[in-house]
Amino acid sequence: MARLSLNTATTKGWTLREAVEGAARAGLPAVGLWRDRVAEAGLEESARIVREAGLRVSSLCRGGFLTAADDAGIDAALQDNRAAIIEAATLGTSELVFVVGGLPAASTFGGAALPYPADRAADGEASTSSEAGRAVVPGADPARDLVASRQRVADRIGELVPVAQEHGVRIVLEPLHPMFAADRAVISTLGQALDLAAPFPAETVGVVVDTYHVWWDPELERQITRAGAEGRIAGYQTCDFLLPFAADPLLSRGHVGDGYVDFATITRWVTAAGYTGDVEVEIFNQTIWDTPGDQTLATMAARHRTHVLPHL
Amino acid sequence: MARLSLNTATTKGWTLREAVEGAARAGLPAVGLWRDRVAEAGLEESARIVREAGLRVSSLCRGGFLTAADDAGIDAALQDNRAAIIEAATLGTSELVFVVGGLPAASTFGGAALPYPADRAADGEASTSSEAGRAVVPGADPARDLVASRQRVADRIGELVPVAQEHGVRIVLEPLHPMFAADRAVISTLGQALDLAAPFPAETVGVVVDTYHVWWDPELERQITRAGAEGRIAGYQTCDFLLPFAADPLLSRGHVGDGYVDFATITRWVTAAGYTGDVEVEIFNQTIWDTPGDQTLATMAARHRTHVLPHL
Repeated sequence: MARLSLNTATTKGWTLREAVEGAARAGLPAVGLWRDRVAEAGLEESARIVREAGLRVSSLCRGGFLTAADDAGIDAALQDNRAAIIEAATLGTSELVFVVGGLPAASTFGGAALPYPADRAADGEASTSSEAGRAVVPGADPARDLVASRQRVADRIGELVPVAQEHGVRIVLEPLHPMFAADRAVISTLGQALDLAAPFPAETVGVVVDTYHVWWDPELERQITRAGAEGRIAGYQTCDFLLPFAADPLLSRGHVGDGYVDFATITRWVTAAGYTGDVEVEIFNQTIWDTPGDQTLATMAARHRTHVLPHL
Repeated sequence: MARLSLNTATTKGWTLREAVEGAARAGLPAVGLWRDRVAEAGLEESARIVREAGLRVSSLCRGGFLTAADDAGIDAALQDNRAAIIEAATLGTSELVFVVGGLPAASTFGGAALPYPADRAADGEASTSSEAGRAVVPGADPARDLVASRQRVADRIGELVPVAQEHGVRIVLEPLHPMFAADRAVISTLGQALDLAAPFPAETVGVVVDTYHVWWDPELERQITRAGAEGRIAGYQTCDFLLPFAADPLLSRGHVGDGYVDFATITRWVTAAGYTGDVEVEIFNQTIWDTPGDQTLATMAARHRTHVLPHL
């Protein structure tokens, strides 16, 4: 269990202190923290709790939400991400996971899905897309312009890189499953994340491999190999893909072994790529959230031992 | 409206004859047919109904479901697809759309989602993946082996190509949204579909671009351009991506303009790639199915005129 980390989103009912103590009881060496739990406990206090429990912080979730097109939205995103970088440094982790945000019309700062007005792109709507650096497509709707949204993510990363470097923190780009491209993350594949990271040093911009989001990708082996060769694998998150979908597909994540992911194969690819860091378990699932934390940790450890550990 | 085609799945409540008559009333030149509607009306009779209405058949849906690993499943798939090829030829369309099937554990012949037993890959399960042509990964579970499932699709296509050639029919590979990779189609991107098509002549194996399935793909422009250059774009299907998801995400398809797809941009890519064929509207959506067919056709034509036609 020397590399197994509990992400606090898996035991949602626990405070940060409870999660840290639970992980320590279960013999885990690390925790992945969400900023909401850190904010509840206080930043310095959170750092102290983890340190005194003798654990390490495998990652901080999450920065990102960089796709705003208006000045106020851009400023707010930069400000929030500067704060997140400082929080990561204070907590003693170098890995700050970025969920980069969806299309402007759908992406709220918290990432919730919004119904989209059907008449938004009707006749008479402004028919210009004036993003610098790409051809204007007459009739294109800026609110749905995925190419321009992705360019804004690249621009914001470039602006945040010096801040991350100053604090010794790595911006960890997380490709999300394409079902979340509209409302949560316009980075949809590992290859795309690596392309976005390419202009920057590997110690400042990396990627995380979350099995739930990338298991389906026909390019996965090749891109994991590439990520390893570039020194950019900043994290490996294990979580299964369940069917049928939960009412909110974000909650269709499950314990390793309960769904369709081929953990043996993907874990071997990650290992072959040279990754030796923590394996973080981050599951959003109402049934698991309704289960006592210690029981969740026991299941999590057992599944890790069966399905992942033999291939690390 | 000279290129707009009604796929019979959009007007689910209509028989084949009703759909053909409805399309003709609306001034459409073509219909896309599903095999269930053809079977109800009878194959020869269906061909006659379309011919006498003066319409063309833009495509037949669907062949595929090629991922079975057992001999009986393989034989059944080959037999069914041979029948589908003959049906397409009889109906006078060269384009037979293939939905290739999901993982063996989840893919039924009809493509329904099945809950997957949680203990399927528990300790003690057979730990061999003996698919020819790939390295055996100890511990890999054949039921979840995506790489091997994709290889079986390639093998079955190779076996069906001579049959398709004999009947002058094109096998049209449809990449499905990655949210369906487990239970419906292990082809998840246009690039992957083109890689699978590459060994065969363009007039025998092509691809269809369905906006619902591919809109999120960071490689989309490049792969549409490639598909055009290779002469493999066999169809363009327009359908929007709605949020929040329907209880069954397959039904989260919507009328053009109601969701997040940037039709201006994608349509221009398809046009720039040289595609001059029909634009088929195929929507699975309970609200639309509950709407009178003529009204659905009117909405469909209006949305096409506003969002797609200016970019063709």
